[in-house]
Amino acid sequence: MITKETVINDLEAVRSQSPLVHNITNYVVMNTTANALLAAGASPVMAHAVDEVEDMVKIASSLVINIGTLSKNWVEAMKKAGKAAKKVNIPVILDPVGAGATPYRTKTSLQIINECRPEVIRGNASEIMALANGKGTTKGVDSADSSETAIQAAGQLAKDTGAVIVISGHDDYIVDGKLTIEVRNGSPMMGKVTGLGCTATALIGAFMAVNKNFMLASAHAMIIMGIAGEMAAKKSEGPGTMQVHFLDALFTLSEKDIDQLINVKPR
Amino acid sequence: MITKETVINDLEAVRSQSPLVHNITNYVVMNTTANALLAAGASPVMAHAVDEVEDMVKIASSLVINIGTLSKNWVEAMKKAGKAAKKVNIPVILDPVGAGATPYRTKTSLQIINECRPEVIRGNASEIMALANGKGTTKGVDSADSSETAIQAAGQLAKDTGAVIVISGHDDYIVDGKLTIEVRNGSPMMGKVTGLGCTATALIGAFMAVNKNFMLASAHAMIIMGIAGEMAAKKSEGPGTMQVHFLDALFTLSEKDIDQLINVKPR
Amino acid sequence: MITKETVINDLEAVRSQSPLVHNITNYVVMNTTANALLAAGASPVMAHAVDEVEDMVKIASSLVINIGTLSKNWVEAMKKAGKAAKKVNIPVILDPVGAGATPYRTKTSLQIINECRPEVIRGNASEIMALANGKGTTKGVDSADSSETAIQAAGQLAKDTGAVIVISGHDDYIVDGKLTIEVRNGSPMMGKVTGLGCTATALIGAFMAVNKNFMLASAHAMIIMGIAGEMAAKKSEGPGTMQVHFLDALFTLSEKDIDQLINVKPR
Repeated sequence: MITKETVINDLEAVRSQSPLVHNITNYVVMNTTANALLAAGASPVMAHAVDEVEDMVKIASSLVINIGTLSKNWVEAMKKAGKAAKKVNIPVILDPVGAGATPYRTKTSLQIINECRPEVIRGNASEIMALANGKGTTKGVDSADSSETAIQAAGQLAKDTGAVIVISGHDDYIVDGKLTIEVRNGSPMMGKVTGLGCTATALIGAFMAVNKNFMLASAHAMIIMGIAGEMAAKKSEGPGTMQVHFLDALFTLSEKDIDQLINVKPR
Repeated sequence: MITKETVINDLEAVRSQSPLVHNITNYVVMNTTANALLAAGASPVMAHAVDEVEDMVKIASSLVINIGTLSKNWVEAMKKAGKAAKKVNIPVILDPVGAGATPYRTKTSLQIINECRPEVIRGNASEIMALANGKGTTKGVDSADSSETAIQAAGQLAKDTGAVIVISGHDDYIVDGKLTIEVRNGSPMMGKVTGLGCTATALIGAFMAVNKNFMLASAHAMIIMGIAGEMAAKKSEGPGTMQVHFLDALFTLSEKDIDQLINVKPR
Repeated sequence: MITKETVINDLEAVRSQSPLVHNITNYVVMNTTANALLAAGASPVMAHAVDEVEDMVKIASSLVINIGTLSKNWVEAMKKAGKAAKKVNIPVILDPVGAGATPYRTKTSLQIINECRPEVIRGNASEIMALANGKGTTKGVDSADSSETAIQAAGQLAKDTGAVIVISGHDDYIVDGKLTIEVRNGSPMMGKVTGLGCTATALIGAFMAVNKNFMLASAHAMIIMGIAGEMAAKKSEGPGTMQVHFLDALFTLSEKDIDQLINVKPR
């Protein structure tokens, strides 16, 4: 059961424990992801060299793998880090950016899932569809499938992989193959800022470091994302100011804000 | 003939069609380029792996090649993508960042021009000079040549390559070897924000996806850039706020703004 | 002796000479570093290819090496560039991001110090400790050691390497093995923006280009960083607005601001 108290508990845990979140992510969002993690209270580190990812994983509290600008050496490091994470027992989240857009992205995502067994996978509807059945039609890195179809695909993917699946979009769905949580927070303006999906993935990574119920951790993180987005949108005239106010909102977001804005329901 | 109507037509086409613009660009500007394309209404994708650039080009509406932080593997991917773009008949724009600053940049730019035959090349005066005659003196990635000399060089480069040449600076010049269009929009503060030249290139890429008259598409994009810059500068106290307001302006820019601010003339 | 006059003299020199600062830095901060250098009046260039770093060094006025997202090819380029800088007699600053966090980072930092002999090394307390005695405990890329211990370690590192050592944190210390300068400017909010340490390194790089007394150049740059941070914090509600106002402050910062806010003392 998700309440304002469970959300604030996880957020306070991130703020007080400041978990080290190891990100192997894409060039586009490295800066904004690091800033979002800092604003939320976590401690980000970006490291992708095959020479060090295993050592970095050892001191981290969770691992975020994001294939947004993947290439051969990076994929090698992602797999190495993901396997090392299992050995030291820290949770892993995968963001299969653009799965379905090119065979390389779909194939790589499936390889990482098989070899690293991430506890959570977050994507948009098209990406999740592509991973579930190879039928998703992805327009670049944006999404084009209906929510209901995607939720069904996510349920199948959850059963096949054992991972919690997070579909983000107008509404967000957290799916574990049995239950589905629907998060209705957020603002359309969030889609006009590049990489907020990647930020969601990283934020879930931070929450996974403090809450081992990964379904709840994911839902809490998506609620915080959405509330921060709503708070920012109210102050913004466009995607430029949106990006700035979003970070401010993550930083200042209080129990009162959660109480007033939380919009979540089980399905 | 360029009027406020031709400009708004292209902008509305970008906003309604949301063309997928495939960028192989530099690390410095990936985030800001993606955000500018989103703000203008296009759909950006960043992908550089030799394993996928051909597949990504197939679903894209235009290709932007920017050598700002080039290295061997990236250049290979740029050439592969540029050739693939010709096969599927989508337009290509090249940004030869820093051509003239190092032999590697000049040589790579010329190779890409020869092998990929971009429909548009956008640079500052020094870069265009360097490509035209090997005589440009480039101070890093900034510009040092006079406009008139550069326009002549651009005319020669246009004839030699068949590409439309865009020189950006205090005033912008769009040159096809016969005609020259001068765009006088813009603000000095734009030079204090890193990568706005790269943003201009990407924005032209988006306009090339909706208007196959590449000279007009380029001019329209540069007018939109300049107007957004002027709108942003009015609200800004420095380059930080400028960057933010520029994205807001791209997003909100209306027919009325174009009508009031457009400043273009044939030469 | 540091006074408001010596600080403004260096800042004015950067603004008037606009030195070309060659950065081989990490993906996370490339954009923000370039923007900070531009805002301060310098001319940034980012170039990391082994095929061109020597050529770029030749036209640069200083070289910034930052290992934040290091990997094999990049380290090779850093060493090549660092050695080339010695040949053409331009100053080098090293930012050993995350030294102590992984063996790869510590080892690489020490190699660069030995092979390139940077004139200045800037890090947080943990990083400097790790380089000085291999005993630092680094939490990711953040810092965990006490200032006094770090100052001692910095003194030893300065003697061992001949470099000026800059420790940044709540207070900043510039150490050459004989004297220590303490800079008390800055704001806690600066720690909530990713990469401001890297920005400090790049800014020192710009000041080293105009003042060959590297201890003073480093102190002046850290004072400017801190004052800009204080000015920005006053206008900011969180780390998002902070980042934006910081760039504005670097751009607008005046002799009067320095006079009112400078907070430095010898120890």
